[in-house]
Amino acid sequence: MADDTAGSGTVAGKEMERLGDMDAEAFRRHGHALVDWIADYLNRTERYPVLSKNPPGAVRDALPPSPPEKGVPFDAIFRDFERVILPGVTHWNHPGFFAYFAISGAAAGVLAEFLSAALNVQAMLWRTSPAATELEEVTLGWLRQLLGLPDTFEGVIYDTASISSLHALAAARHRAVAGVRTRGLAGRPDVGPLRVYASEQAHSSIDKAIMTLGLGHDALSHVPADDEFRMRPEALREAIAADRAGGVTPLAVVATVGTTSTTSVDPVGPIADICADEGIWLHVDAAYAGVAALVPETRGVLAGCDRADSFVVNPHKWLFTPFDLSAFYCRHMDTLRDAFSLTPDYLQTLEAVEVRNLMDTGVQLGRRFRSLKLWAILRHFGSEGIRDRLAEHMRLARLFAAWVDESRDFERLAPVPFSVVCFRALPAGAAAAPGRAGTDGGASTAGGAADAAVDAAADTLNERLIEAVNATGEVFLSHTRLDGRFTIRLAVGHVRTEERHVRRAWELLDEKLRALR
Amino acid sequence: MADDTAGSGTVAGKEMERLGDMDAEAFRRHGHALVDWIADYLNRTERYPVLSKNPPGAVRDALPPSPPEKGVPFDAIFRDFERVILPGVTHWNHPGFFAYFAISGAAAGVLAEFLSAALNVQAMLWRTSPAATELEEVTLGWLRQLLGLPDTFEGVIYDTASISSLHALAAARHRAVAGVRTRGLAGRPDVGPLRVYASEQAHSSIDKAIMTLGLGHDALSHVPADDEFRMRPEALREAIAADRAGGVTPLAVVATVGTTSTTSVDPVGPIADICADEGIWLHVDAAYAGVAALVPETRGVLAGCDRADSFVVNPHKWLFTPFDLSAFYCRHMDTLRDAFSLTPDYLQTLEAVEVRNLMDTGVQLGRRFRSLKLWAILRHFGSEGIRDRLAEHMRLARLFAAWVDESRDFERLAPVPFSVVCFRALPAGAAAAPGRAGTDGGASTAGGAADAAVDAAADTLNERLIEAVNATGEVFLSHTRLDGRFTIRLAVGHVRTEERHVRRAWELLDEKLRALR
Repeated sequence: MADDTAGSGTVAGKEMERLGDMDAEAFRRHGHALVDWIADYLNRTERYPVLSKNPPGAVRDALPPSPPEKGVPFDAIFRDFERVILPGVTHWNHPGFFAYFAISGAAAGVLAEFLSAALNVQAMLWRTSPAATELEEVTLGWLRQLLGLPDTFEGVIYDTASISSLHALAAARHRAVAGVRTRGLAGRPDVGPLRVYASEQAHSSIDKAIMTLGLGHDALSHVPADDEFRMRPEALREAIAADRAGGVTPLAVVATVGTTSTTSVDPVGPIADICADEGIWLHVDAAYAGVAALVPETRGVLAGCDRADSFVVNPHKWLFTPFDLSAFYCRHMDTLRDAFSLTPDYLQTLEAVEVRNLMDTGVQLGRRFRSLKLWAILRHFGSEGIRDRLAEHMRLARLFAAWVDESRDFERLAPVPFSVVCFRALPAGAAAAPGRAGTDGGASTAGGAADAAVDAAADTLNERLIEAVNATGEVFLSHTRLDGRFTIRLAVGHVRTEERHVRRAWELLDEKLRALR
Repeated sequence: MADDTAGSGTVAGKEMERLGDMDAEAFRRHGHALVDWIADYLNRTERYPVLSKNPPGAVRDALPPSPPEKGVPFDAIFRDFERVILPGVTHWNHPGFFAYFAISGAAAGVLAEFLSAALNVQAMLWRTSPAATELEEVTLGWLRQLLGLPDTFEGVIYDTASISSLHALAAARHRAVAGVRTRGLAGRPDVGPLRVYASEQAHSSIDKAIMTLGLGHDALSHVPADDEFRMRPEALREAIAADRAGGVTPLAVVATVGTTSTTSVDPVGPIADICADEGIWLHVDAAYAGVAALVPETRGVLAGCDRADSFVVNPHKWLFTPFDLSAFYCRHMDTLRDAFSLTPDYLQTLEAVEVRNLMDTGVQLGRRFRSLKLWAILRHFGSEGIRDRLAEHMRLARLFAAWVDESRDFERLAPVPFSVVCFRALPAGAAAAPGRAGTDGGASTAGGAADAAVDAAADTLNERLIEAVNATGEVFLSHTRLDGRFTIRLAVGHVRTEERHVRRAWELLDEKLRALR
């Protein structure tokens, strides 16, 4: 063994024994410094602007264009992190983050991820870490019970809901198209056009899954929603009937519990009836709102989901788990395994008959030890702690919605079933009438031509308003479009968000609106 | 704000302010304890058996079947981790891990992952963390230069090579099949059968990608390999010609640099010639061996890869980066973006015209801040430190191969281009003749019937041998099959592996073989 090599002569080399890795003493020094920094960061993220103020290229241009020849100790890297990288970070782990879906990397999960990185387990096979496979089974069992889903659902962890829904639709394809695993879709006179149905409010990951699977974007039928942005079951039934009459084979229906724009909930029960009648796979995308089933007042949110064929909920969204961790449940996991399992010689094991090998459940061979952080979160907060926090987020959203509803300068544009509020500011002179700021879906009741003029002015105003509010760095809100109107969204979901943060968002909106009007 | 809630009354609640998260003092206490544990773990992993000795169900049965109602502090969770989870861990971060491809979660990368978990950034859009998008660009530029690939390759980070290769083939499909994004593959008389070509030694992820994309497993043509397990270009050319004559459209060729069983290298230059002649997409899977291009003696390993259309290398394999991080390069990233980009209203941004939004490059909307750990690894080791370690791993593999070649009890079954040795023990009485233990591919030169008897006996012997060696807990080796023979693999790749570990593996093989024969 060469004890004295070029590597040992570098700056980083001084911290290493021979050709190996950082020694224990150096790791402790750097690690303890990092713990202190992170403890401070998690508790005082507010010192940073939520939305990075960097112009494009600032980070890129501040870094050398070529890789370093010599190594450096970790503290030198960390200094550059603080100097160059940190100003370019948008702080998702900030209590003023109200954009998209607000997520949390809660402390217990952050520590568990640290541990998971140190173990560096790759859980493709049971034997490549029995604990990773079995803890995934246990934690997904716990989560399933918390959601109130029956034990006919088997669970598996993926990275994202995009991949979970891809697998759901792959399983549906496998069931609906004979021989698709072997013979595919192309050049087969026996396979006609196929269709997947989802509401016009469904997430773009459904579109991407359909494109990936070779079904083509046209295979997605966007079913019209009602005025509260929920799929209309009768429209679904009509779309299926029309397709069947036209020689198109229905493949799957995707119902959403908590759509991205407004968190509306599709009527899963009636949709499940249709799927049962028609023999169509039902996939439920509850990535964001599924966990609301833990809270007594929204217990019924998953009504009908026990009849779904597959179901996805993302603990990395509203369950405080550091990104990424998507929980996928399926009542026919064997169909998915039939679609994907394939064991080359180099992955065969004697125990394959008696254990689950997680690689059989999907596209990705490699999988991290993700269940460790979910276990840490579920145990650290307990069901009670999770329930209380989710209920508080919903309380904060209702509070904010009440401020919107009471204001003559703003109007609400959608119901607030969970922790997201959709609203907009009104141009001067178009102050909200009681009828406009309704709580019943926000569909305008005023006349057409006048409304169109209001909407055009409002779009411009709200684009400038959200820009001005986000530029403060105190909060970060995102937008969507509802019925064509530019809509501001306030999404509560960070574990450290308090009433004062929501109140500050409201104050800033009010203040910036005055400046703009 | 409710300051006094049910959550605060729990054990974990005592560490929390109000409904929030762990306070700074508690985080420091738990974090510092974890740093000390990890420092010790990384430097003394050898105290643990590398392959878990757990029987199936041990972890599952030791945990409560239902989720806890009350929360607990992190140290209580950690105690259960040590007691219940740790015995079920197979220690990938162990210098005696010689199975599959040995990987490393090097210390600098582990610390960077801790930081990444704390930031909890979701890098779907440039604005959702400019630093994540731009550091990805910079670090992939560095890695590209280290690999010696031209700057016509644009890079993007995915989780796994499975997903990288899926995207490569999706891009190839997009180029070859007009309208596939919109119209898909099914029910189209204008789309005939399609084919993807890969060597019979290619990784199973290629099979899975083809199945996922709706091409069907039959669309994969396994091109025969030569006696050193490399794709035969003339066989590829023949397969393409036969397909064209039969009305099958060639879609893509996948060449492998470092196959999983033997780390053989397909002749990428001649394959690129064929792809150029035929107008077929060339994807190179260099997930494991691509980084060997950094080492002078294996500099030429990527010859011809500059002509590939796409290329994947996994820093989480042989570049010390904690799992997961797969680097995908493409000379036509716009084709991939054409295939996948789709921006719903809620993800539109003003700056989209001047920045890259990474969500446009693939299936998954969500993406972690993975470049942070790659940056830490490249800077901490420096090019020099990486080069020295890779060279040392190859030296250790050659050393082990020499022991095999010198032994009359073992024979080598494949060349050793990098850091993996394929070999087997010989049954008593079938001691290796000089002609058997050749370095030229290991194809047996002895007669058929005698060989068949030797092979049958050898399979049983080697299955028992690897089982006995792995049961010691000191090392972990895996196996494959080459020309039908059960083959033991020793893969060197962990950053802390020293000559003494490789020597110990050899001693154990020798010792257990004596006991078995």
